[in-house]
Amino acid sequence: MATVTEAQALDIYKNSIHFDGLNICNFGEEIFQSWHDGGIDGVSVTCGLWENFRDSMFNIVQWKKWFDEYPHLIMQAHTVKDIRTAKEKGVTGVILSWQNTAGIEDRYDFLRLFRDLGVRIMQLTYNTQNYSGAGYTELNDSGLTGFGREVVTEMARLGIVCDLSHVGPKTSADVIEFAPEGKPPCFSHVLPCGLKEHTRNKSDELIKAIGAKGGFVGLSQFGPHMKKGNDSTVDDYVEALDYVISLIGEDLVGIGSDSSEGHGRPSDFMAWCNKDKGYARSLTAWGHAKVIKPLGPLRERPELVKAMARAGWSETKIRKVLGENWLVYLEKIFGA
Amino acid sequence: MATVTEAQALDIYKNSIHFDGLNICNFGEEIFQSWHDGGIDGVSVTCGLWENFRDSMFNIVQWKKWFDEYPHLIMQAHTVKDIRTAKEKGVTGVILSWQNTAGIEDRYDFLRLFRDLGVRIMQLTYNTQNYSGAGYTELNDSGLTGFGREVVTEMARLGIVCDLSHVGPKTSADVIEFAPEGKPPCFSHVLPCGLKEHTRNKSDELIKAIGAKGGFVGLSQFGPHMKKGNDSTVDDYVEALDYVISLIGEDLVGIGSDSSEGHGRPSDFMAWCNKDKGYARSLTAWGHAKVIKPLGPLRERPELVKAMARAGWSETKIRKVLGENWLVYLEKIFGA
Repeated sequence: MATVTEAQALDIYKNSIHFDGLNICNFGEEIFQSWHDGGIDGVSVTCGLWENFRDSMFNIVQWKKWFDEYPHLIMQAHTVKDIRTAKEKGVTGVILSWQNTAGIEDRYDFLRLFRDLGVRIMQLTYNTQNYSGAGYTELNDSGLTGFGREVVTEMARLGIVCDLSHVGPKTSADVIEFAPEGKPPCFSHVLPCGLKEHTRNKSDELIKAIGAKGGFVGLSQFGPHMKKGNDSTVDDYVEALDYVISLIGEDLVGIGSDSSEGHGRPSDFMAWCNKDKGYARSLTAWGHAKVIKPLGPLRERPELVKAMARAGWSETKIRKVLGENWLVYLEKIFGA
Repeated sequence: MATVTEAQALDIYKNSIHFDGLNICNFGEEIFQSWHDGGIDGVSVTCGLWENFRDSMFNIVQWKKWFDEYPHLIMQAHTVKDIRTAKEKGVTGVILSWQNTAGIEDRYDFLRLFRDLGVRIMQLTYNTQNYSGAGYTELNDSGLTGFGREVVTEMARLGIVCDLSHVGPKTSADVIEFAPEGKPPCFSHVLPCGLKEHTRNKSDELIKAIGAKGGFVGLSQFGPHMKKGNDSTVDDYVEALDYVISLIGEDLVGIGSDSSEGHGRPSDFMAWCNKDKGYARSLTAWGHAKVIKPLGPLRERPELVKAMARAGWSETKIRKVLGENWLVYLEKIFGA
């Protein structure tokens, strides 16, 4: 297939839909403006991590206020159609998402409320054990629990994406196996073990398993978990995309930057993320260690498409990985 | 104006919209079937009274399940248009409502979530003092509190009806005065002091005040609070309608039956309603006393229109009081 120049790639970027499968930024006007300036048309934003039911609801209130306050920059997206509408309007379509199911506490019935309020993507568990399964730092991986089966079933019924990025390997494998036909889970923001062995990265076996079910893999940009560590560049990020594409083809792969722009490192927020339930033992070293993120700031996102061009990607492949693949997958889960 | 026969009135009933401004029944399939059989096209249902935030959310889950389970009998109505659609489909359009603002706990920001989930009518307080004001059984009436002003303002902004039926007289008067222009409160289910002096009934002065602001008065059917007590009939109910119409005209008056069909008297539910916060001191004698409800069972609701005919009402007046008045008022608050 024909390759494109960097200049051509920038044109393609402008009239493609670019969807970023995970941001956990210090959200507010500056970030919304950066999405706009960086040409990010759709984004899944973390609005729940360790929070309980009430606090998770409160996070939604904050987003609804932002949607009211910054209509020239963002709009809430409940569907794939909403993301396309956002692109047409020149704003960023925002899908609310969770990195944990702490917000439903002990009641899977509450999934319905959050779904109706727009939380359309949920990671089953974040780093540690919860009612549904284990995170990747847990001492032992319980696998998908009995309650977790009910949660996964209800999420599928309601059209909520089940994300397994921070989920432990056994729980991940169980969910991939258990998820109802046609409603496969995703890894929204991961890197492959095949380029760097790490417990947070995903094995070739799991990536192939999720691909075989029609699931999805979004690639994150965490230097220390990449082949060249903190020397990694945007070209290494594209190499990681190509590596996953070599495992499951070019239709099931996209971007999930895990951008945490605007948060200091260290910061109270990072420390909260990094402790079990927000306050207990620390789970990883990354709260304080140096972390390079090779995609750079959000407003420099067009650098990604230039790197795709340097890697010899075709226009079709660029469009798919920038966003169209994500949209096809999301529509599969959300319904049309 | 021309009067109509009882037979003509029954025809008018069939092709009018009948909206009932308050039911607090033992909800479930039997009640939904009774609405259907009784020709009740739209109804405001109590789904929150003493419940805190989480339990109020849980009540909504129950209603969403019922909407999924009985689509041949009911549908959720968020707007007046939805009620008209329900009539066309031959089902009952159900507006979720609260008889207290306990569900938002200490956060008026939570109003937004409940509004988005479909709670479009809220009584400011039920019988006793809360953060916003006093109920009619309270020792002293605080009037509308500072927090209550913020709640009333936010409800108006969000298009939520502010109901003052069980609210104390000073708090009621304050809200009528304070409510933003064009967003007047209502009494969804009351009786007039002019026919029977009682603390739960509303004075001519308050009824005229709410009318002068373009608010609304729905009439309830609680025998002991009516002129003839438990000897009251459906004709006495129509007399009460005419009494209120004599105060504020025929455009701002409708039905708010306060039907509690399916609950025993006494019953655990009635005892819970009748205690402060559901468990503290008992507030009235009505948990155990005899109560006649002159509108009769829901499925006999057409008796109402026959009584309107006996009272010499015109077709126009019948249509307005049966439902069109409610819809005009609700649209004023909800927006089109």
